[in-house]
Amino acid sequence: MENNTNTPPPTTTTSTPSSSTVSRTVLLILRVLTFAFLLIAFIILVLTKDDDADIKFKDIHAYRYMISTIVIGFAYNSLQIALSIFSVVSGNRILNGDGGYKFDFYGDKIISYFLLSGSAAGFGATEDLHRIFKAAEEPLNSFFGKANASGSLLLFGFIATAIASIFTSFALPKKAN
Amino acid sequence: MENNTNTPPPTTTTSTPSSSTVSRTVLLILRVLTFAFLLIAFIILVLTKDDDADIKFKDIHAYRYMISTIVIGFAYNSLQIALSIFSVVSGNRILNGDGGYKFDFYGDKIISYFLLSGSAAGFGATEDLHRIFKAAEEPLNSFFGKANASGSLLLFGFIATAIASIFTSFALPKKAN
Repeated sequence: MENNTNTPPPTTTTSTPSSSTVSRTVLLILRVLTFAFLLIAFIILVLTKDDDADIKFKDIHAYRYMISTIVIGFAYNSLQIALSIFSVVSGNRILNGDGGYKFDFYGDKIISYFLLSGSAAGFGATEDLHRIFKAAEEPLNSFFGKANASGSLLLFGFIATAIASIFTSFALPKKAN
Repeated sequence: MENNTNTPPPTTTTSTPSSSTVSRTVLLILRVLTFAFLLIAFIILVLTKDDDADIKFKDIHAYRYMISTIVIGFAYNSLQIALSIFSVVSGNRILNGDGGYKFDFYGDKIISYFLLSGSAAGFGATEDLHRIFKAAEEPLNSFFGKANASGSLLLFGFIATAIASIFTSFALPKKAN
């Protein structure tokens, strides 16, 4: 893969496309990171089970909520990455003007809240359930360890989306004004 | 309660001081609402105990995390309300210019994440713990009911802060540009 640095810089007048290009690139990296985190979180959570104790992730309601937030975040990030690739290939955004910036702003905001709530619900359930199972001499360390690993990755996905949300908040006015 | 529709519309030139005043008032109302929600959530959570089963809210780690997010949100909202009252009384903001807007923006963003994570952790723990206690023929309905009531109020506090965060995100550019 070669770096095409020979392309001429776009002609600019009053606006600042260079900083805009940088933040677009950072945004795309953050979305790809979120995508990767959520994918691994999903795989680990699906594999969270203990055959001896006959317990699966579906038996814990908080983990079901976790997986639904992962799927929602996954769908949103796939859409955003597809839109980014389209805008790079075609040279213009599908959602032009105010609408696109507001979609990014509200999308990142709402999805970051979803991801955080999923992660927090998972950690909250794991922490206290694990203590009860330990007290009952059936620690299920591997089961809860996997759930915590998935919750951590979901938290990383949240952090990446929250940073993206800061960028899209700052990007908002440049079009709105 | 009468509708005072006789007040003349404020005279505006190029900028929009009226919309800024409106959003300041809305922000103050949202912060007072959050303050009230968190205060009641705190009181209910502290009273969450069952003497027969000898269980207190401190015995559930997720509820300890809940109370710490309530205290953090409470401190932040008290500070914001104090700053608002000062700015109304003295006629100017303590945190002038960019700094004040960025403080509002990051403050609302971070505190809304804290409140949501506390609420989600509490609900996640309650849901699955309650099922285990029910299965053990010791439902503790009143105990978990109070915890859920506190979690709901914390969620309302989050919603009010999240709406405030949208306002402070939109307010950001007007100074930054």
